[in-house]
Amino acid sequence: MSHNSFGHLFRFTTWGESHGSALGCVVDGCPANIHLTEADIQPWLDKRKPGVSRHVSQRRESDRVKILSGVFKDGHTNGQVTTGAPISLVVENTDHRSKDYSDIRDKWRPGHADYTYDIKYGVRDYRGGGRSSARETAARVAAGAIARKVLGEDISIRAVLIQIGARKINRTRWNWNDVHANDFFCPDARTAALWAEDMDKIRKAGSSVGALIEIICSGLPVGWGAPVYGKLDADMANAMMSINAAKGVEIGAGMKAAAMRGEDAADQMRLDADGQPTFMSNHNGGVLGGISTGQDLVIRVAIKPASSIRIPRRTLTRTLEPAEVITTGRHDPCVGIRGAPVAEAMAALVLADHKLRAKALSAYG
Amino acid sequence: MSHNSFGHLFRFTTWGESHGSALGCVVDGCPANIHLTEADIQPWLDKRKPGVSRHVSQRRESDRVKILSGVFKDGHTNGQVTTGAPISLVVENTDHRSKDYSDIRDKWRPGHADYTYDIKYGVRDYRGGGRSSARETAARVAAGAIARKVLGEDISIRAVLIQIGARKINRTRWNWNDVHANDFFCPDARTAALWAEDMDKIRKAGSSVGALIEIICSGLPVGWGAPVYGKLDADMANAMMSINAAKGVEIGAGMKAAAMRGEDAADQMRLDADGQPTFMSNHNGGVLGGISTGQDLVIRVAIKPASSIRIPRRTLTRTLEPAEVITTGRHDPCVGIRGAPVAEAMAALVLADHKLRAKALSAYG
Amino acid sequence: MSHNSFGHLFRFTTWGESHGSALGCVVDGCPANIHLTEADIQPWLDKRKPGVSRHVSQRRESDRVKILSGVFKDGHTNGQVTTGAPISLVVENTDHRSKDYSDIRDKWRPGHADYTYDIKYGVRDYRGGGRSSARETAARVAAGAIARKVLGEDISIRAVLIQIGARKINRTRWNWNDVHANDFFCPDARTAALWAEDMDKIRKAGSSVGALIEIICSGLPVGWGAPVYGKLDADMANAMMSINAAKGVEIGAGMKAAAMRGEDAADQMRLDADGQPTFMSNHNGGVLGGISTGQDLVIRVAIKPASSIRIPRRTLTRTLEPAEVITTGRHDPCVGIRGAPVAEAMAALVLADHKLRAKALSAYG
Amino acid sequence: MSHNSFGHLFRFTTWGESHGSALGCVVDGCPANIHLTEADIQPWLDKRKPGVSRHVSQRRESDRVKILSGVFKDGHTNGQVTTGAPISLVVENTDHRSKDYSDIRDKWRPGHADYTYDIKYGVRDYRGGGRSSARETAARVAAGAIARKVLGEDISIRAVLIQIGARKINRTRWNWNDVHANDFFCPDARTAALWAEDMDKIRKAGSSVGALIEIICSGLPVGWGAPVYGKLDADMANAMMSINAAKGVEIGAGMKAAAMRGEDAADQMRLDADGQPTFMSNHNGGVLGGISTGQDLVIRVAIKPASSIRIPRRTLTRTLEPAEVITTGRHDPCVGIRGAPVAEAMAALVLADHKLRAKALSAYG
Repeated sequence: MSHNSFGHLFRFTTWGESHGSALGCVVDGCPANIHLTEADIQPWLDKRKPGVSRHVSQRRESDRVKILSGVFKDGHTNGQVTTGAPISLVVENTDHRSKDYSDIRDKWRPGHADYTYDIKYGVRDYRGGGRSSARETAARVAAGAIARKVLGEDISIRAVLIQIGARKINRTRWNWNDVHANDFFCPDARTAALWAEDMDKIRKAGSSVGALIEIICSGLPVGWGAPVYGKLDADMANAMMSINAAKGVEIGAGMKAAAMRGEDAADQMRLDADGQPTFMSNHNGGVLGGISTGQDLVIRVAIKPASSIRIPRRTLTRTLEPAEVITTGRHDPCVGIRGAPVAEAMAALVLADHKLRAKALSAYG
Repeated sequence: MSHNSFGHLFRFTTWGESHGSALGCVVDGCPANIHLTEADIQPWLDKRKPGVSRHVSQRRESDRVKILSGVFKDGHTNGQVTTGAPISLVVENTDHRSKDYSDIRDKWRPGHADYTYDIKYGVRDYRGGGRSSARETAARVAAGAIARKVLGEDISIRAVLIQIGARKINRTRWNWNDVHANDFFCPDARTAALWAEDMDKIRKAGSSVGALIEIICSGLPVGWGAPVYGKLDADMANAMMSINAAKGVEIGAGMKAAAMRGEDAADQMRLDADGQPTFMSNHNGGVLGGISTGQDLVIRVAIKPASSIRIPRRTLTRTLEPAEVITTGRHDPCVGIRGAPVAEAMAALVLADHKLRAKALSAYG
Repeated sequence: MSHNSFGHLFRFTTWGESHGSALGCVVDGCPANIHLTEADIQPWLDKRKPGVSRHVSQRRESDRVKILSGVFKDGHTNGQVTTGAPISLVVENTDHRSKDYSDIRDKWRPGHADYTYDIKYGVRDYRGGGRSSARETAARVAAGAIARKVLGEDISIRAVLIQIGARKINRTRWNWNDVHANDFFCPDARTAALWAEDMDKIRKAGSSVGALIEIICSGLPVGWGAPVYGKLDADMANAMMSINAAKGVEIGAGMKAAAMRGEDAADQMRLDADGQPTFMSNHNGGVLGGISTGQDLVIRVAIKPASSIRIPRRTLTRTLEPAEVITTGRHDPCVGIRGAPVAEAMAALVLADHKLRAKALSAYG
Repeated sequence: MSHNSFGHLFRFTTWGESHGSALGCVVDGCPANIHLTEADIQPWLDKRKPGVSRHVSQRRESDRVKILSGVFKDGHTNGQVTTGAPISLVVENTDHRSKDYSDIRDKWRPGHADYTYDIKYGVRDYRGGGRSSARETAARVAAGAIARKVLGEDISIRAVLIQIGARKINRTRWNWNDVHANDFFCPDARTAALWAEDMDKIRKAGSSVGALIEIICSGLPVGWGAPVYGKLDADMANAMMSINAAKGVEIGAGMKAAAMRGEDAADQMRLDADGQPTFMSNHNGGVLGGISTGQDLVIRVAIKPASSIRIPRRTLTRTLEPAEVITTGRHDPCVGIRGAPVAEAMAALVLADHKLRAKALSAYG
């Protein structure tokens, strides 16, 4: 069962609410003897944390991770390593101003999970969205950092924004070096500059906007993924759609595959210069029959605009009275931006699980 | 673990290859005392089976389902009912002409799973695609028929085609009655007629084409689905992406959510004529925070064009020699058509599982 | 969830009732390229099948297994091998005389699951015990045969009877060659002869008797099993207690460990003649901290006497009227005998799963 | 997969080492709206904690539990209640004197998991046994307290010691009131007094001794448990055998069932004074066919003597040199004593899971 756990062999379980004292996760199934300190995890949390630019939430969280178990260091070990025991990670919540939310305690905010949580559970921790807050994704990012260690350095997992609102990047200008030179994980510097202007307007209008994230995983071997209900792409779809505000997931050609012809969609094969099999295109996004082809695994996720806006919206109260609601807390005008490191983490977590699964069944006969 | 099983409380496991003697599934977790005979399952298999129009594969399979376990009937029971024991379903393969495939035994067909299976497993049942064939989906449809019985008649699950190739339906002409009056599960009769013409051309050209399926689940209660890794929409994404040839999944506004503004995307609430909560739009597709809102659950799946075409494509052999391949067997020029009943089945299977999961946790305090 | 499935990476799902048309299982997670034909499975079913001596049920079942999927053979493969796809196994029921059971349709047989099934499910396939019949164990034995192939020939799994009723074997006479030279899988020929006399009396009296099975798994490496909820011994306890009529499970010293002192119970270590670590005793039964030590894994299972006897017992009917019941069908006077191959199979199934699990997490750093 | 998680619908995951900064667990699948504060959990931890009598480890741990997530309290709720979100529990380690263990860093202590951990993982947190320490059971007890809340007050789960070393209680003197009036959870005051003398001798001798725990669960409905691999007794066997030092598990008649005759073992039924079905004995220990009968569920667990003793034992070092080892830390001369609250907790955790599982499948037709 998977209420708050994800993965099979490499598996993590998250806990915590937006305005509780802390949040965290337990990472289970990490092999032993992998070097791991908090310094391996912190940079990824820093990428995701709020308050780093004017385009994201102004909540000030240091998001310092602590490792409470599962690692060991002594004269025998070469530095601090994993022991095979579960790794408990904790991040304290420091800047949670619960008073910001007292006004909306009894109102179901449109686009949020307030209504569904209330009806399903009969009780709701409304402070900052409680369990349904995207703050939970900090735990995913922390777990994802460990997944990266399991995958090793030959596999890279990089998420970029390719669209904010109606404005898309120009792929001919794609430059990996640009990605960390702007506030948007954008591989196209010129579009990033325009997004900055767009975002300023949106933020001032008290509105929000959606985004499109593209995740590219490189360096995969052929053969990860398992037909027919353990497909690599299906697990990725599950992982990505579990991210707050995600509304669509694509692999390779994605939704556009519907309009294609067979002779265009089927990626032809040939030998490369080294006499190794290679593909002449990647419309399948690096997966065939649910199994990795060795090409780049290409995933896209559509993130809806944040529902926390200052523009009044009609709603109901818990006692079924019509009401208007505006959300005045510190929110992300485009949750898709901070969604990029989260999507990267989820991709890493799926891959680490499939690496171990592939290993388990390899090399008989 | 989920190699060939799907679901948690309501769970099924499929087995069988395209050209084996039979295929089937075991449905586990079906509650007792539900009326069930083969007549409850057969109509859904008939919807999916090949050979029913010129637009689908001409393979002639009767696709008769047999129930081998899990049901009982005697003087005490009101007809034949489930007993709570696992239900074993079998469909025999009758028209499998393995000789059709002898030519491609050693060639990796582009767009198929030949290459990835070969590298992953070192052995491949190439006859008709073996385990990677869409023939496996017959078992899903059979299991899905039982899921519908678990859901009951108040919940309807209907899949339609809304696009074949570049041609989309006109939603203003949507008529549910049209859906079964054409060969395409199309709710727009006029578009269906054009599709027939399109398909004739494609088939004659030896090509194939993609499609877009929309699945609409109506009659859901509020409260199915479980944050944060048991989200109803994430489970649907997983289910849909596990279907052969699926390349994209959308919930509600889907990929277009990226271009929206917060004030447009957040579905406002009001009271309906009966004083009950209702929504003023459904951009979230019937799910908020991973939990059903009681609105229609709206899912779209993009199906790529079939890779089995008569147009020559470049590829490699198992011994790494360049080759050309054409596929001359009896294939679907648009696998998306027969994908509609499969998508319906997968939706039913996810919902039946979540119905039981919601029940398990309901009504404390 | 585990209603009718067992295992994680190597996993099987059984289906079928005692008097249905067939029973079987789906084995999922079997690695590819393992030689497998029906001839690999049949001998193990033959060991378990009824009607082979006067001491077991006289039901005449040929118990022929058929493989319906998951194997392949052509010019490339060296004989018929597994493909990594799920393996569907079916055994037809041929000699099921349902009329034998008509008398007990409405009576809850003491010691059987009639009452609990009736109350839990509200419906019960009473023919031969339906799903609760030990006939289900044929599927386990078939799956177990595949597990043995996964384990390879270096690992032996042998179950013997060490007690029937009050009479125990004399361990000083233990001779592995005797085990298949009598009707009781007994390693002590002299005790086996006495059991034959005992059993004749019991059978004539219309009674039944319990037994004690000992399972010895040899050739294990150090390191299988996973703390703390995937312990090898805990998984074995689960597996053994899932066998019909099992009432107790022991590992190593078992229940007698309660009376031991620490200096006696802790197995001391030394170097063997080859300079390799070895143990000076095996009170822990080959497991420490849930992980295999490389010693023999020693398990014992207590099987209660069959509840189907010809001696009248008091009970109730479904309409809550007092009644007397005797069972006149063809039954085992000591179900423990045929339980031995079942216990072997369950041990093999647990080990195969743990072999793959250990492999998945091995060799980092 | 279940490395460090247990349960399906009601599920917990533990983490932490004996001498880490803290240990804890995440409880997932707890229904909403159950009253829960730390005061509901602490008493059970206090029952298990060390240092409460001279017969248990003198380690001084306050074992204060903190709830970090999953509960909420405001004007709407009637006190603090669960929200349906995962409940994170933490217990800090305060009195861990790692220096006590420096001597045995390189020696494999007989009867402990040192050798198997070292070979399996290649690294071992030797401080106090690390992850293999029984200190992990504090997390089980904390989780078990929540399980009790899920079960409600009509179900009682009580574990007692019925044997320490060779000395058994006299069942004719069984008095539930005695259980908490001695240091041994013993229902027979006179035997408890003798045990105190026995234990003083054992402790002074630097030795240890085994014990037999009996767990009695009362107030269960008919119908919990699920054939055939979700049997209540098989899940209990798994749960009990997962407890550190457990070597045997019995249900009802247990190992003695081997010596019984069918007419004695099968629990006959009759109507009770209220005209309700009742049983005339309980040799099956409250389970038939894996499903609860409504009788007391009776389980026994054999706990081996602690391996940490002051009597020198032969062993090897990590570099394969013969050595002698004694363990001088603060240890339990009879780990079975503190095992009783742990066994209670595990029984509660299994039952809570099965309560939810039974609910999920109930009441169709």
